[in-house]
Amino acid sequence: MTLYSPSDSSPTTRDQAIRTDLQHPFRRQRTAFSLPEGVIYLNGNSLGPPPRDALTRLAHVAEQEWGHMLARGWTACGWMDLPKRAGAKVARLLSVDPETILVCDSVSVNLFKLAAAAARQNAPRRTILIDPDEFPTDRYMMQGLADQQNLVVRSGALGPDVAVQIRSAVHYKTSVIAEMDRLEREVRASGALLIWDLSHAVGILPLDLKRLGARLAVGCGYKYLNGGPGAPAFVYVDADLAVGLRQPLSGWMGHKSPFDFAPDYVAADGIARFAAGTPAILSMSALDASLDLYADVSLEEVHKWAQALGDLFLARAMAMGLESASPGIGERRGGHVALRHHDAANIVRALAERGVIGDFRTPDLMRFGFSPLYLGFTDVWDATERLGAVLNGR
Amino acid sequence: MTLYSPSDSSPTTRDQAIRTDLQHPFRRQRTAFSLPEGVIYLNGNSLGPPPRDALTRLAHVAEQEWGHMLARGWTACGWMDLPKRAGAKVARLLSVDPETILVCDSVSVNLFKLAAAAARQNAPRRTILIDPDEFPTDRYMMQGLADQQNLVVRSGALGPDVAVQIRSAVHYKTSVIAEMDRLEREVRASGALLIWDLSHAVGILPLDLKRLGARLAVGCGYKYLNGGPGAPAFVYVDADLAVGLRQPLSGWMGHKSPFDFAPDYVAADGIARFAAGTPAILSMSALDASLDLYADVSLEEVHKWAQALGDLFLARAMAMGLESASPGIGERRGGHVALRHHDAANIVRALAERGVIGDFRTPDLMRFGFSPLYLGFTDVWDATERLGAVLNGR
Repeated sequence: MTLYSPSDSSPTTRDQAIRTDLQHPFRRQRTAFSLPEGVIYLNGNSLGPPPRDALTRLAHVAEQEWGHMLARGWTACGWMDLPKRAGAKVARLLSVDPETILVCDSVSVNLFKLAAAAARQNAPRRTILIDPDEFPTDRYMMQGLADQQNLVVRSGALGPDVAVQIRSAVHYKTSVIAEMDRLEREVRASGALLIWDLSHAVGILPLDLKRLGARLAVGCGYKYLNGGPGAPAFVYVDADLAVGLRQPLSGWMGHKSPFDFAPDYVAADGIARFAAGTPAILSMSALDASLDLYADVSLEEVHKWAQALGDLFLARAMAMGLESASPGIGERRGGHVALRHHDAANIVRALAERGVIGDFRTPDLMRFGFSPLYLGFTDVWDATERLGAVLNGR
Repeated sequence: MTLYSPSDSSPTTRDQAIRTDLQHPFRRQRTAFSLPEGVIYLNGNSLGPPPRDALTRLAHVAEQEWGHMLARGWTACGWMDLPKRAGAKVARLLSVDPETILVCDSVSVNLFKLAAAAARQNAPRRTILIDPDEFPTDRYMMQGLADQQNLVVRSGALGPDVAVQIRSAVHYKTSVIAEMDRLEREVRASGALLIWDLSHAVGILPLDLKRLGARLAVGCGYKYLNGGPGAPAFVYVDADLAVGLRQPLSGWMGHKSPFDFAPDYVAADGIARFAAGTPAILSMSALDASLDLYADVSLEEVHKWAQALGDLFLARAMAMGLESASPGIGERRGGHVALRHHDAANIVRALAERGVIGDFRTPDLMRFGFSPLYLGFTDVWDATERLGAVLNGR
């Protein structure tokens, strides 16, 4: 089977798009989602749609496990270990050992844990390096930590003052992919610790944190991982580094023996020490089931198709006179494409009325995401037809 | 209608128990729960059972809202405001203004937010006061905060060094109710800030935080509030105090204008500044629906019946030679009763095999909870019959 790749010419007719979709490698996944009739969903970079298995699992956990096993579910239904089990599924997507990832809390809270632990590790260095256009909540959390800990938040170049740097692997607006190898190397050489925010990268890009030597990362469960609104996030810590790190949100789930109810905290070995309070089992179960869609998927192939779908979208949108705010056709980018237009808010609204869901980011950006787990060339073709109609005021 | 009260004599036969249940004030609630056939569930102090409406709501939010509205659910289905809407329902149970409570994160994480903010407010005082037998995760979190912030955790008497005191309103083991009035007065007079952990109190005791002058509290969503395993917790901050507090987990949900995506954090007015990352909507929706069971319920009556059910249980258990680790018959206590027995683990296991679910706390405690929202005298009578059978080796 020859895969479509950006070096091939994009489909130039709807019939060609349909024919190309016959080669779609994710046929199992594409039938696994529950999406409303007539909707072309290009916003999975914001919130992924529900896999049917996630809905089934959620109902099972609620009605059978909670309803029948009640509190015994913590052991009998494996709720206690769910953060680790789901973490192991995420680990495959990052090419790291299963026991180095935990699913828990939100990206914001997990970033706080890692940054606090890393800053402490690297004292007396006092600077957290983060760009002004990084994902806002990452900046806010670092400002909160700095304010509490008398640290400094700045942007710009590495230096001997920098304890920690925060960096998105894929930029949430532009979809630019960071030069992860170079950054990891440079930050390490400078003596700082780099924390990756993989929120817009996990599940759409092949990532090999082990090869990179990446030691710390957080990421989102509800974008390409399709875990549901506000799904728990994940936290990754390299096993060797974890041993020496102490994070301040030291709740009972991170205790070495949580059910001893001992008066003093003793950190669990490894990644478990990055847990805090009781995990939200209902939300986490939906994510855990959604992750199974990735069990037999090649991330290289996911990214290749996402790139190709985005290329087709870009080619047709640019032919309509729209300006890309993302890397262009054939250039590497994440799973989404951003377009700039002074009337972006109205265009996104008009598209939604025609069943094409993208999103608007103030003041002039529209973002469109292309997860090939549920989208094909025909969807993209039809979406751009409707985009043309909107732009022509039809 | 004359309510059963501890001054009446407890039922002394099963028929009397059945007759007393005819006066049960929570008939609507008792039919509203999904409980397995033949099970007498005395562990709602650990994890409440599912109200049927919570299961229905969860399925609706997952299938209809997530499935059909997708990312638009944040505004169209009111997910953005859910932490406040659910908070307003909790507020009624604490007799405080609706806009002073937010549902979010876990008890552990919320306690960290409040203690960090309060300790900062009360600098240069550096001590966090918490008893050795307080709920373990509360201690662990305070040890983590102290370790990070160079604060001191100690127990014992108030003093000019104490910035913050942490106290459970109902003790998780013994069910002893704290002298909330006296404590609040003493802590305030000493210049410290008192943070209440209401986890084992909310939904089973009448609480009037406003009258107490209580200014800070956290509590659990999955015990008497029946929000589901790991349901989000709540955080309460007095409106006047909130204005000046800065908590370090300053994520985008606590930003004054989260969708401006501005580079710098500006705290929202009021309770919203105690939010951090994106809320777990699936888990929170179940809790929000469960809270509606309390819409027309008097907490005085809930507590009176919980107390009476516990009294009957205690009377019969003590007649079997069991020792109470909780306040005795007719004495005020929370919703559960703890018994001490050297063979507690096996008794709890044997009871479970007979459909009576309690829980075991190492080394020698068994706990039994008595939420009158789903339990009556007949249930308690039958539970003690089976307890007798277990003790007699039948």
